[in-house]
Amino acid sequence: MIAASPEGDARLYGVGVGPGDPELMTLKAHRLIAAADVVAYPMADFAGVDDTRANDSFARRIAAHAIPMSAVEVPIVVPMRVARFPAQAVYDAAAATLDTHLERGACVVVLCEGDPFFYGSFMYLFARLSARWPVEIVPGVTSMTACAAAAHRPLCARAEPVSVIPASADVAPLRARLAQGGAFAVMKVGRHLSAVRAAIADAGLLERAQYIAHASLPEQVVCPLADAPASAPYFSMVLISGEDSYAGA
Amino acid sequence: MIAASPEGDARLYGVGVGPGDPELMTLKAHRLIAAADVVAYPMADFAGVDDTRANDSFARRIAAHAIPMSAVEVPIVVPMRVARFPAQAVYDAAAATLDTHLERGACVVVLCEGDPFFYGSFMYLFARLSARWPVEIVPGVTSMTACAAAAHRPLCARAEPVSVIPASADVAPLRARLAQGGAFAVMKVGRHLSAVRAAIADAGLLERAQYIAHASLPEQVVCPLADAPASAPYFSMVLISGEDSYAGA
Repeated sequence: MIAASPEGDARLYGVGVGPGDPELMTLKAHRLIAAADVVAYPMADFAGVDDTRANDSFARRIAAHAIPMSAVEVPIVVPMRVARFPAQAVYDAAAATLDTHLERGACVVVLCEGDPFFYGSFMYLFARLSARWPVEIVPGVTSMTACAAAAHRPLCARAEPVSVIPASADVAPLRARLAQGGAFAVMKVGRHLSAVRAAIADAGLLERAQYIAHASLPEQVVCPLADAPASAPYFSMVLISGEDSYAGA
Repeated sequence: MIAASPEGDARLYGVGVGPGDPELMTLKAHRLIAAADVVAYPMADFAGVDDTRANDSFARRIAAHAIPMSAVEVPIVVPMRVARFPAQAVYDAAAATLDTHLERGACVVVLCEGDPFFYGSFMYLFARLSARWPVEIVPGVTSMTACAAAAHRPLCARAEPVSVIPASADVAPLRARLAQGGAFAVMKVGRHLSAVRAAIADAGLLERAQYIAHASLPEQVVCPLADAPASAPYFSMVLISGEDSYAGA
């Protein structure tokens, strides 16, 4: 999978920067970012969704304190419109830009919210560049465990399974898994909050369910799901601890 | 849950130290450990299992470079015998020791492999001490995402669910979940390797399955599950990427 590089020092890093608190970056992430020639990151474009909002990169905000003045920055602009956008074209263009930097022997770091390979968009660059360049993945703290920490609730213990389920307009898969037991992390709850809450209540699991938004940031919100606000941001989650961990056994 | 402390500065931290590479500790973990008055950690006692092995603390080895000379160290000795051991008594005694340090106003850091609340034993101390003392949980990089990084395989993308399943002598729950689709992380494979492999092969998922041991450490092993060694260490895992992430779409 890893081919020899035309230039000896060229290397692509997919670096997890953690859930939001800049101090939850790893020592390795900090070291690599501080030494990078090129720093790339996803940047949300809210045009057509909320025209009052400027483009914003959450990953860049997390890592800002580590980015050297000398680094070339490459924002990867991703439209936030719900309708399908030409994602292939966005990642094709970004890969071509990074390829140019790698050709000249650059050390290229791509900043990834949370962990690069846990629901991360870095996989699209990895798929395009890993045959041509040495790639290293630096894992990061996920929002899932940051939410468990924020909620002061162990997520899982011993032999308990955990089901991680991205929220979706179709709650049938969520309902099917809720019936199986274990612990649950429902990711990116956002506009699906009321449907997610109804499914969890119907499964008899509301008492164990916690709602967490913006974990590890100053604006963090933690409360029982039963008391959650009517509307949830994209970066929100519902955690249901496993039976053993809930009991604190 | 958090009561006011008798001493103003007393505080208990459950600190994730990540999967093994000391550089995969967070900046926050490093700062807290370096400033700790008391550093506690689980220590494996192999008596009755392998009498040639000395007691060993993996968490302490990961964090060794950050522990100050001045810190009081509190090993929490956990028997590795498969038979039930008096876990309640071990954690009761450890909690009593830490309580004494907290009474005198100490900053107490408990080192946790990976993340404190993702299959971590810190929950037993949390259950015993969190009503009396302020507790902060510092999330860490889990072995799950460290394994995905080591394997160079995105674990999950978009709306794919992930099932995290600790390996067990009873593979029926694993077989049931394998039939549901999505991505899978089978944790702590160890002596259950052949049963896990058979279940995955029967589900037609062997091609997508990777075996990873000691992720992020010099002795790391990564290979297709089909080529995995006959015996696996406790710190080993099988990952099956979701369909979308496997396709690199």
